[in-house]
Amino acid sequence: MEGTPLGDGPTINTIAERAGVSIASVSRVLNGLPTRRETERKVLAAAEELGYVRNAVARSLKSRRTHQVAFAMADIGNPAYLAMLREIQPVLKAAGYRLVLHSTDAVVADEIDVLHSLGERYVDGLIMSPLRVTDAHLESLAAARTPVVVIGSVPEGTRADNVRADSRTGVRLAVDHLHALGRRRIAMVNGPLDTVPGAARGAAYREALEELGLPYDDDLVQIGDFYRAEGARAVAELLARVPDVDALMCANDLIALGALDVLRASGRRVPDDVAVVGMDDTDLAAASWPSLTSVSLGSAERGKAAAELLLQRLRGDDSAPRLVTVPPRLVVRASTAGNRADGPYDRKEGGV
Amino acid sequence: MEGTPLGDGPTINTIAERAGVSIASVSRVLNGLPTRRETERKVLAAAEELGYVRNAVARSLKSRRTHQVAFAMADIGNPAYLAMLREIQPVLKAAGYRLVLHSTDAVVADEIDVLHSLGERYVDGLIMSPLRVTDAHLESLAAARTPVVVIGSVPEGTRADNVRADSRTGVRLAVDHLHALGRRRIAMVNGPLDTVPGAARGAAYREALEELGLPYDDDLVQIGDFYRAEGARAVAELLARVPDVDALMCANDLIALGALDVLRASGRRVPDDVAVVGMDDTDLAAASWPSLTSVSLGSAERGKAAAELLLQRLRGDDSAPRLVTVPPRLVVRASTAGNRADGPYDRKEGGV
Repeated sequence: MEGTPLGDGPTINTIAERAGVSIASVSRVLNGLPTRRETERKVLAAAEELGYVRNAVARSLKSRRTHQVAFAMADIGNPAYLAMLREIQPVLKAAGYRLVLHSTDAVVADEIDVLHSLGERYVDGLIMSPLRVTDAHLESLAAARTPVVVIGSVPEGTRADNVRADSRTGVRLAVDHLHALGRRRIAMVNGPLDTVPGAARGAAYREALEELGLPYDDDLVQIGDFYRAEGARAVAELLARVPDVDALMCANDLIALGALDVLRASGRRVPDDVAVVGMDDTDLAAASWPSLTSVSLGSAERGKAAAELLLQRLRGDDSAPRLVTVPPRLVVRASTAGNRADGPYDRKEGGV
Repeated sequence: MEGTPLGDGPTINTIAERAGVSIASVSRVLNGLPTRRETERKVLAAAEELGYVRNAVARSLKSRRTHQVAFAMADIGNPAYLAMLREIQPVLKAAGYRLVLHSTDAVVADEIDVLHSLGERYVDGLIMSPLRVTDAHLESLAAARTPVVVIGSVPEGTRADNVRADSRTGVRLAVDHLHALGRRRIAMVNGPLDTVPGAARGAAYREALEELGLPYDDDLVQIGDFYRAEGARAVAELLARVPDVDALMCANDLIALGALDVLRASGRRVPDDVAVVGMDDTDLAAASWPSLTSVSLGSAERGKAAAELLLQRLRGDDSAPRLVTVPPRLVVRASTAGNRADGPYDRKEGGV
């Protein structure tokens, strides 16, 4: 490569001289290989001064690398995915990758589209977070020539790295906590059972009771949907049927916020009369009053782990697919523990 | 173009025949021009069957278009920018563009980097939302050969479309509302005055009082920072100095959440003793208790307007730069109006 003329203009030699860096460094930069930021700056400044115009397209044709990574999230409005995004973006940026963002609205055809489009080589790798993994996903994953990391559960043998949450243990932590506080009439307010989280969380609740030696009672289970209004409606029905309930295990934070609304309206004190636990530990949990005890399923940690796994692949690691499970964490706040600290005061909200 | 051989493989003619579409349609798809989704699908399926492999790089070399648009947000953790992102992404997706996401952490050098990198032609256009627009921004904007839309204020004569909020009118709406409720000791809890929002909101508060014929009183102004803990600290100081305050105009929602914490701890009822207004109308406003009256500065609407302006440019509109100002909206909730509805129950939060 040394001395290769760049059109009629400057050569690698003249750029290296002007930039005060090695010829190898110039070559690395112009071929789009990872380089120290400072070196890159010098080389690009010198190249610009000498009239060499970089062209991302030509560069990527040559190196076959795009320095882009895609993140396909199921729902751009869902705080859990945004928490992943907030961690994925800086990890990729630090490694010199641009982030291409897809929102698939959890439509399987859109997700398959994203996988197919990897054939266009517009990115070097993909992180995806589908709500469900179908056979069509698996076929497309098997065909992909680009590294893919899936946040969610994939069947054993799938050709993709995999980062998982553990909602089962999460529910267990919450029910154990309520039990340790002396609660014995612990109800479950869940989303639809034909969704992956609904089914998993419902089963985990049943198991948790069993391990604690508490009886499972159908009357203590109320199915609604994963939204605040539906959560409120479900809790109102539950209270009408079993007024002596002393704890609510809610399948997500929005359901729990709906529960707080109804408990307040019915004159019940939280946590004195009824303790409430949410799930996902969104920003809303700390903002509510009383602030909400919630099970964190580690969205941020999962995003970070996925980005790091992908970077390893992009650096050439071609070992067998890996599985990382991020352990859940119970974040205890006032809705179960009375006058505890009100959660972290940490989220910036500058006006714009 | 008709009949141009694609390497040794299929021709546009054979692809058109297989796909059952016109030759012009095949040409459009293979050149990456906007096409109906269904047509694109048919053409790509036929091309794949015939062994023609699309290559984004080769395609974009030819058409000089990348079908990517970048959004450079100041802070990926800030709900106001996320609200923009949630609107920008679907508008671009519907028009066939991929979104490249940058987070600049409001570092000017990073923002300039993004503007400079437009020279690499990795995107067809850019939406950026800087906290401040410096001379360096303006120089880079003037040099950009790619359309740029700025969300924020730019000096007149800047070569970029511009989408603005109107926090001045927003503060005015809030102070008028508090005044109409009979409040006369209306305090302002602000962020630092050397930030753009701090300065603008402080000045707007003063103006609003003036127009209502209320005296401006230094004692009623407390400067903290745009975070919950700092908001709480500021309100505690304010209450110690002016215990008879009957309304708080807070410069953002986090400050207002801090205010609610302190008012509750001091035994003051909201809104009976003290009414509270926030700003930005984040998801947190509806989640808090009492739910928070807040000034929406139209983050979502600004994102949408920016995406639509950019699409017009990408379709070839080269008229003079445009300015769109999104009007603010006061969203009245329980923190000023007592038992009003508790805000929209609308945000999905599926577990994953």
